[in-house]
Amino acid sequence: MVPNGEDSHKGKSSGEVIQIQLPPHHNFSRQVSLETGFAALNAEANRGKNAAFSPRGAKDRRILSRNGKSLGITTGAVAGADGVRKGDFSMFRTKSTLHKQLSMLPMRKESGFDLKNADGSSAGGGGGESGREESINQSVPAGRYFAALRGPELDEVKDSEDILLPTDQTWPFLLRFPINCFGICLGLGSQTILWQSLSTNPAMSFLHIPPHINTAIWFLALLTLVSVSLTYALKTAFFFEAVRREYFHPVRINFFFAPWISCMFLAIGAPPSLAPARLHPAVWCALFAPVFVLELKIYGQWLSGGKRRLCKLANPSSHLSVVGNFVGAVLAARVGWGEAGKFLWAIGIAHYLCVFVTLYQRLPTSQTLPKELHPVYCMFIATPSAASLAWNAIYGEFDAVARTFYFIALFLYTSLIVRINFFRGFKFSVAWWSYTFPMTTASMAAIKYAEEVPTILSKGLALGLAVISSAIVSSLFISTLLHGFVWCSLFPNDLAIAISRSKHSSSARNIKIAKDTKSAPASRSRYDNLRRWAKKSLIPTTIDHHSSGHDSDDKRCTI
Amino acid sequence: MVPNGEDSHKGKSSGEVIQIQLPPHHNFSRQVSLETGFAALNAEANRGKNAAFSPRGAKDRRILSRNGKSLGITTGAVAGADGVRKGDFSMFRTKSTLHKQLSMLPMRKESGFDLKNADGSSAGGGGGESGREESINQSVPAGRYFAALRGPELDEVKDSEDILLPTDQTWPFLLRFPINCFGICLGLGSQTILWQSLSTNPAMSFLHIPPHINTAIWFLALLTLVSVSLTYALKTAFFFEAVRREYFHPVRINFFFAPWISCMFLAIGAPPSLAPARLHPAVWCALFAPVFVLELKIYGQWLSGGKRRLCKLANPSSHLSVVGNFVGAVLAARVGWGEAGKFLWAIGIAHYLCVFVTLYQRLPTSQTLPKELHPVYCMFIATPSAASLAWNAIYGEFDAVARTFYFIALFLYTSLIVRINFFRGFKFSVAWWSYTFPMTTASMAAIKYAEEVPTILSKGLALGLAVISSAIVSSLFISTLLHGFVWCSLFPNDLAIAISRSKHSSSARNIKIAKDTKSAPASRSRYDNLRRWAKKSLIPTTIDHHSSGHDSDDKRCTI
Amino acid sequence: MVPNGEDSHKGKSSGEVIQIQLPPHHNFSRQVSLETGFAALNAEANRGKNAAFSPRGAKDRRILSRNGKSLGITTGAVAGADGVRKGDFSMFRTKSTLHKQLSMLPMRKESGFDLKNADGSSAGGGGGESGREESINQSVPAGRYFAALRGPELDEVKDSEDILLPTDQTWPFLLRFPINCFGICLGLGSQTILWQSLSTNPAMSFLHIPPHINTAIWFLALLTLVSVSLTYALKTAFFFEAVRREYFHPVRINFFFAPWISCMFLAIGAPPSLAPARLHPAVWCALFAPVFVLELKIYGQWLSGGKRRLCKLANPSSHLSVVGNFVGAVLAARVGWGEAGKFLWAIGIAHYLCVFVTLYQRLPTSQTLPKELHPVYCMFIATPSAASLAWNAIYGEFDAVARTFYFIALFLYTSLIVRINFFRGFKFSVAWWSYTFPMTTASMAAIKYAEEVPTILSKGLALGLAVISSAIVSSLFISTLLHGFVWCSLFPNDLAIAISRSKHSSSARNIKIAKDTKSAPASRSRYDNLRRWAKKSLIPTTIDHHSSGHDSDDKRCTI
Repeated sequence: MVPNGEDSHKGKSSGEVIQIQLPPHHNFSRQVSLETGFAALNAEANRGKNAAFSPRGAKDRRILSRNGKSLGITTGAVAGADGVRKGDFSMFRTKSTLHKQLSMLPMRKESGFDLKNADGSSAGGGGGESGREESINQSVPAGRYFAALRGPELDEVKDSEDILLPTDQTWPFLLRFPINCFGICLGLGSQTILWQSLSTNPAMSFLHIPPHINTAIWFLALLTLVSVSLTYALKTAFFFEAVRREYFHPVRINFFFAPWISCMFLAIGAPPSLAPARLHPAVWCALFAPVFVLELKIYGQWLSGGKRRLCKLANPSSHLSVVGNFVGAVLAARVGWGEAGKFLWAIGIAHYLCVFVTLYQRLPTSQTLPKELHPVYCMFIATPSAASLAWNAIYGEFDAVARTFYFIALFLYTSLIVRINFFRGFKFSVAWWSYTFPMTTASMAAIKYAEEVPTILSKGLALGLAVISSAIVSSLFISTLLHGFVWCSLFPNDLAIAISRSKHSSSARNIKIAKDTKSAPASRSRYDNLRRWAKKSLIPTTIDHHSSGHDSDDKRCTI
Repeated sequence: MVPNGEDSHKGKSSGEVIQIQLPPHHNFSRQVSLETGFAALNAEANRGKNAAFSPRGAKDRRILSRNGKSLGITTGAVAGADGVRKGDFSMFRTKSTLHKQLSMLPMRKESGFDLKNADGSSAGGGGGESGREESINQSVPAGRYFAALRGPELDEVKDSEDILLPTDQTWPFLLRFPINCFGICLGLGSQTILWQSLSTNPAMSFLHIPPHINTAIWFLALLTLVSVSLTYALKTAFFFEAVRREYFHPVRINFFFAPWISCMFLAIGAPPSLAPARLHPAVWCALFAPVFVLELKIYGQWLSGGKRRLCKLANPSSHLSVVGNFVGAVLAARVGWGEAGKFLWAIGIAHYLCVFVTLYQRLPTSQTLPKELHPVYCMFIATPSAASLAWNAIYGEFDAVARTFYFIALFLYTSLIVRINFFRGFKFSVAWWSYTFPMTTASMAAIKYAEEVPTILSKGLALGLAVISSAIVSSLFISTLLHGFVWCSLFPNDLAIAISRSKHSSSARNIKIAKDTKSAPASRSRYDNLRRWAKKSLIPTTIDHHSSGHDSDDKRCTI
Repeated sequence: MVPNGEDSHKGKSSGEVIQIQLPPHHNFSRQVSLETGFAALNAEANRGKNAAFSPRGAKDRRILSRNGKSLGITTGAVAGADGVRKGDFSMFRTKSTLHKQLSMLPMRKESGFDLKNADGSSAGGGGGESGREESINQSVPAGRYFAALRGPELDEVKDSEDILLPTDQTWPFLLRFPINCFGICLGLGSQTILWQSLSTNPAMSFLHIPPHINTAIWFLALLTLVSVSLTYALKTAFFFEAVRREYFHPVRINFFFAPWISCMFLAIGAPPSLAPARLHPAVWCALFAPVFVLELKIYGQWLSGGKRRLCKLANPSSHLSVVGNFVGAVLAARVGWGEAGKFLWAIGIAHYLCVFVTLYQRLPTSQTLPKELHPVYCMFIATPSAASLAWNAIYGEFDAVARTFYFIALFLYTSLIVRINFFRGFKFSVAWWSYTFPMTTASMAAIKYAEEVPTILSKGLALGLAVISSAIVSSLFISTLLHGFVWCSLFPNDLAIAISRSKHSSSARNIKIAKDTKSAPASRSRYDNLRRWAKKSLIPTTIDHHSSGHDSDDKRCTI
């Protein structure tokens, strides 16, 4: 572990010197700060818990229960407990008054933020605020997300990282409500179309599915979409900085397509009794416009290639940024704008090609996904299925092109099913929902194919895929209800948005802590020891925390 | 060669010190071990050669005749000559009894090994064997193949590598029989179809080719396939570990497709007098199933991307793993399962796209192919030709898609022909056969095109390509016969499968050898001197060995 | 600017020491050499300027006016002023006599140089010349271009690089005439076709464009092509080494397609009154043959991948090497060789795929383009537009394939227009012309689409695109005239071709200069100071130089 003996010896000796020289003052200040920080935060949280524990216990507890390293409390406490009492979460709060923000909101959202800030440069929201606050409001550079996070969705914080918010308490609900929640709408919305197909498609007429199921699911999906949208709108209003951090997150950005795709799903899957046979083109314009703006922005980033180049960003979630085109093409065919549909199909196929090849190559620059297959791989099925459906919708026939894409989807599906045992052992999270709609899309394509080639095998395949996708959506729905309302563990702290803007700033803060010891390197080596110890003691806690979310009810049930 | 003078001086002086200090004991033990090893091995090989040569001569001979560095003998001899006598080749032998192995064989082969070991993790064949043996049976990680081998087919051992088997003697025939031999079947099988086309295609009717040629070649191809398959089945039975090492070899794995593609070639090219006009679908199912299983495995490896990601593995041989789909699609069209053919075509085209783009990009992570063009580049022609033929077979017309692929193949063909002078100067090897079938496929596509567009130019092109491919196959056939039965140099030692599992283990062995000199660094520098000297004296030998395989008849003619 | 204080202090102090120690001899030799060099060069240039300036002034002037670092004068002067008098520019001169060269010229040009030198190895033109001259004549390796140049077109020299020719004076006109000038022909040639379409296409008949405009532009384009071709032919004759350096330049090589594409544009856009309705196939053969030869060479380089592999070379200009196929396909359809057109389309699409995906991935190995969008990005539009037109021309219908490519072009166009503000602030250069023809191609495709789908929107779009492209071409034409004939700033020194062949040789030369100071490191640090100072004083000059080319009339107006 130590490269050359001389260096390690020097480091150790100076560390010892410091420990001998300065223990009383240092330990004292540290303990006091921790206690003050904890007391302040506990008071704020109003949990009515017993705050009268010993300083030593506070330290232990803090280190044991955290996941990642939050120095926010300690530093805050050192800087002055009063300022921190509100400051901790307020750093993500919208800077202007609510009124001003609400008036800005639609504008900002629809313009896909400013195209000039395309490369994640500072947006400079705040004017005369303090230096620290400004540094948080500046957008996090893309490299930091890659450096600080891990996992196939970049949603886990590396152990060596400090995060800005306290991890030992539950954050405000809105801060814990990620953009991924729109995945629920994706899953339910696609089910709407599936059941519409099942009830109306001649190939599936042998099932005699009543159209009421479609209607029921449609209303459920609409209800979900409205409530999720409202909640996220509130988050945008109150915690705009958190939304911005999600927006600059290399994986999460793809989920910003989800609301609009969900809306398009609902428009396509609207029950015939409610919607006219041919929707008005304005529907298409309204729903596709935001997708188009986002696409211009994201594809432009790939092309002009600063930090956010495709070879680094490519991730199964990137399919989400492509699949919108095909869904939009289907909707365009529904409203009677075939040429617009062809336009979208062309955009879609060009970028699908890039994403597909890039993902298959698994360039060394791309994120190393864990060896185990993750639900995120389901995304691979979505785009070819949707491309197949869209071609069929636009050009009116399930010809060689549509079949080729359908069969590609089918092969990838098989390829995943064969590896089914890799899907076990994952903790449920709301992100799972996003991975249901690919299966639903595949089963819709299978129904189309069964309509074109009505053999027993094709019909059986369509039925089987439909059953699988419906079963998964149902079980996820129940899981979500249980996690959300019974176990209250649906929304854990969203650590991914709370990483510090730069590694430098966090170490600068360490030095600030260490200043009173008069010797930075010594205190650093000492701090590293602390860190190492914390990491060791962290491991059993984390496992425990993962395996059973139940026994943390008392602490975290806030929804 | 020596970076800085001081270091070289130090190394030299310590080397001198050792030579002065320890010559009697060290040289003695080394000479003895070499002699013993040689004697033992010679005894085992039963060559009846004169073993009474001086120890000094043994050393020289050993170093001169080896290619790569085999320390197997020396170490084995140090450890005890008796144990080595059988151990040397037996490490690749099937571990269980022959009876047990044979019963397991079909299961293992058809399931494409276990999908759970998809990333080359240890399969754990042996139970209570010794530590060393176990370490050999564990599969070699992908990185080792890249690290230890070189050449466009990863079939040459780097000079710095030690290999596990003795290189100065001829290994057992089965160990020297590589999977590449199925290339012969590919070449002959595709010729069968070519001559069938020539005799039956209306565009080529002006040649008046009798159908008997097709029949004759078909039987020859069948005979070859049966004999090669039997031989390789014996290898699988007796040297299962060697087969496994071929299976984990990043380039060789592609040749595992060859047997099944050969079978499909034979099924497609079966003379009309022997086979029914429409084959039974069961033929397709039986022949394509193993290809499909292998594909699920290989494409999955690309996608989930551990060490065996496409950007590292991509190699012209990767086309072999794609072309099977198109051949399967043609066969599916023959048995009347058009939709299955479309399915295969879709799989093929999706993965061809990835392979094509990756190979054209020549990513820095991919193996650096030698600047000279190698026969392996012919593979580039195979896939577009086969895609063109398959499209024509499935959709029944040689339309824009089929033409586009045919023309792509034609351009790549031209591109290679222009660089024809790069193809000279390569030693004949059985791998050449694999590079004949692309040309045959191209000429078949040209015949189809000439049928569609019957001009003099297109017919002339078809005829020209057919003549080229037949001429090359004929000359290769004669070369193979000569090399195999007259010069007995068809199967040199297959060094690629005998690399040590880890660099560490081999250096650990060096240290074991050096232990008696009491000073590891000194002995290492001394060993390096030996190595350098060996390399120097190796060069003329290797060149000599390459230019003329004739004069080594007495030593190596074992087939 | 100075990283750490200690270093800068040391550097300064040693510099001072040298200045104190060695001023008389060193300064004297340097000043003399500079004066001599300048006098010699001025004498050669025959400008009749006043050469009687003080040595000090000469030094200042030299450093202030240069761009990049030319040590050519100083070294040359040290080596002996007489040899340099002719040697400076003559190093790029054709080696053999003019007569011999002219006889070789057509052969060399049409064969696309020798295919055997495909990887930029030395062509060895000179026989018994001096060592230095030989080292210049050897082709510059690809890596050097990447190392020494920067900018999206690799046309700016890095500050740390020395260049071979003096930068403080205007080079001979032919040396400053880059291959990029054929871009003018591309721009005008494509306009010819556009106005032909506007006057003849039924969709645009509402504009009542008279056919005379087509004729007028055609003659203008023809005149331009002839004059540019003649000039470049003279450059090839007199400065063959400079042409060769352009040929090995990773970006410039693509512009070698431009002359032939321009010719094809003129053949396609020939006014009906002048040309027969169906051109003779020989026209196609003559014009496409050089493109085909170049393609075989360039695509072969990508594939066999030495230093010039696609993942390194890929650059928006690479589209130029692909678009020729589609233009050739259109011409093939015009001469009635539909199958040849399909052949070209297939080649084009296969390589477009690779270029498109590679550019979109923005591999880390590829040149980092500046964050701002550059006109070179317009190239992205060219290829899909041309592919769309070519498909329509060959297969006779604007079907799904043609539409898909047209829509891809349209999306990329939109994507660039949205980022229009990135296009501002670039200095005009002749390279801009190459970026006009993509827009023209896009508007031609839009006209074809409007013919197929005659709605107000599609017609308006076609009209709008045509207006944009014509407006840009007109303004560029005026700018070019102004820059060329009024401001005389059209052809600055073409620094990109004058980089030294290896970094080593230039530093070796530094040492040669420094030899008389007896202390290489000291002199180097001193030289570095000079360098730093030069860089500082360079900045205002460059800006001034960029903003107004007017006041440099007296010095540089040589065209």
